[in-house]
Amino acid sequence: MKLLRVGTAGAERPALLDADGVLRDLSGVVDDIDGALLADEAALGRVRAAAAAGDLPVLDDTGLRVGPPLARIGKIVCIGLNYHDHARETGAEPPAEPVIFFKAPDTVVGPYDTVLVPRGSTKTDWEVELAVVVGRTARYLGSAEEALAHVAGYAVAHDVSEREFQIERGGTWDKGKNCETFNPLGPWLVTADEVPDPQALSLRLWVNGELKQDGTTAGQIFPVGEVVRYVSQFMTLYPGDVINTGTPAGVALGRPEPKPFLRAGDVVELEIPGLGRQRQELKDA
Amino acid sequence: MKLLRVGTAGAERPALLDADGVLRDLSGVVDDIDGALLADEAALGRVRAAAAAGDLPVLDDTGLRVGPPLARIGKIVCIGLNYHDHARETGAEPPAEPVIFFKAPDTVVGPYDTVLVPRGSTKTDWEVELAVVVGRTARYLGSAEEALAHVAGYAVAHDVSEREFQIERGGTWDKGKNCETFNPLGPWLVTADEVPDPQALSLRLWVNGELKQDGTTAGQIFPVGEVVRYVSQFMTLYPGDVINTGTPAGVALGRPEPKPFLRAGDVVELEIPGLGRQRQELKDA
Repeated sequence: MKLLRVGTAGAERPALLDADGVLRDLSGVVDDIDGALLADEAALGRVRAAAAAGDLPVLDDTGLRVGPPLARIGKIVCIGLNYHDHARETGAEPPAEPVIFFKAPDTVVGPYDTVLVPRGSTKTDWEVELAVVVGRTARYLGSAEEALAHVAGYAVAHDVSEREFQIERGGTWDKGKNCETFNPLGPWLVTADEVPDPQALSLRLWVNGELKQDGTTAGQIFPVGEVVRYVSQFMTLYPGDVINTGTPAGVALGRPEPKPFLRAGDVVELEIPGLGRQRQELKDA
Repeated sequence: MKLLRVGTAGAERPALLDADGVLRDLSGVVDDIDGALLADEAALGRVRAAAAAGDLPVLDDTGLRVGPPLARIGKIVCIGLNYHDHARETGAEPPAEPVIFFKAPDTVVGPYDTVLVPRGSTKTDWEVELAVVVGRTARYLGSAEEALAHVAGYAVAHDVSEREFQIERGGTWDKGKNCETFNPLGPWLVTADEVPDPQALSLRLWVNGELKQDGTTAGQIFPVGEVVRYVSQFMTLYPGDVINTGTPAGVALGRPEPKPFLRAGDVVELEIPGLGRQRQELKDA
């Protein structure tokens, strides 16, 4: 299923994009799309049954904003340098074990919302990523296979990054990863049953129409199951948590000087076929 | 006011410790103690009026668990190496600007709850800290004075840390800061009007009855107002966000070998006079 949330920010309603690409209202079946729903087999079953019956009300999508496809996100765990080609372009050794940093859930916006260039920023950068949405509480998982059974679904994430804040201002990467609007998510939360192989997804990102990133999750150093297993050794994952699994090569940071960092007026588009496409215009904060 | 939340985990009710040290039920006045309450002057006014009237129902505290004093925490921003003596004991230079890392809100437990030594941990460490609770949305604040006006109150925080995970396993400090139960908070959220000078608080921590940390917020490199102002340049702070403002000297990491890291059975007590006292027993996860 392709689950999404539509409406004004903070007042989104749950919806479903059916097999024919028709937007349908889920608000008569579930209150919202969040960790509680993803952990509730019975409620998910009702959604599936309603989708299969084909009689959910059609929503007119004219002028309708698409919000992030998940409400009440608990935490966003991010994996750094998780693609061989991206580690290489930044001059880093491939990490011996996953690099973890965090984004706050309040950085999440919808897939077509404005992204703000922070005040004082000269190094705002893009990163297309596969986001993993956790569906079951996960602690000290024993294997990558077991870990995959804790994944509810997948989405496109834009891990917007301010490189000066991240790297040159002391402290950890978090300083450059948590500016307002820095995590567009969606448009859809695609349930795991529709993503039989999370290591066979292509990821692309364009800036002002020019292709900048063109990768595949086959290039991940630590694949999705291993990432979830690994993270669960250090912290407990709860339904509604998100893991951004890293970005392939092609970010501004990896380019020759003058690096083409983002500015107000730029348009970024991101796509993972099967998971949907995002488009954001940048503005000054 | 001293606000707190009492009851079983996940089902706490709001309460108030009155000027005579009597525990009183606030659930007839407000639903809970969270960012929405802290941002709502009218609701806070009702709490103040009810407290002043002295007719809130008395709660029998016999056997009553004390939970964290704040529900629905949005994010926990932590400041590293923010005391001269602690920076020195870890062999670090005093940072030129605040070091930021994150704890996930799901690490928060009550002040007397069990703290879990993570599986595989040999370097679980203690850190007593002053936590700042944000009461108003803060972005790009202009001064430390303005920043202090965005603080709703203060609490004791225990920033439990696993040093191997934090420092020796690649990536950022977040890996050693987010294990389950790693952020006891409370017992009270003390409103800012009762803390006229947040730089005049003493912080102490004992392990098995032995005093380990004995500091004062006067030793902070970046005082509370400056920390809030600084953080607001990199991310937006919302009501119900928490900032852990760093720990003074005396952690296990700063001791000679063999460093006295925590083990199951150890008891840690923490106190900031005026903000209350915590006590946790450690168990294996």
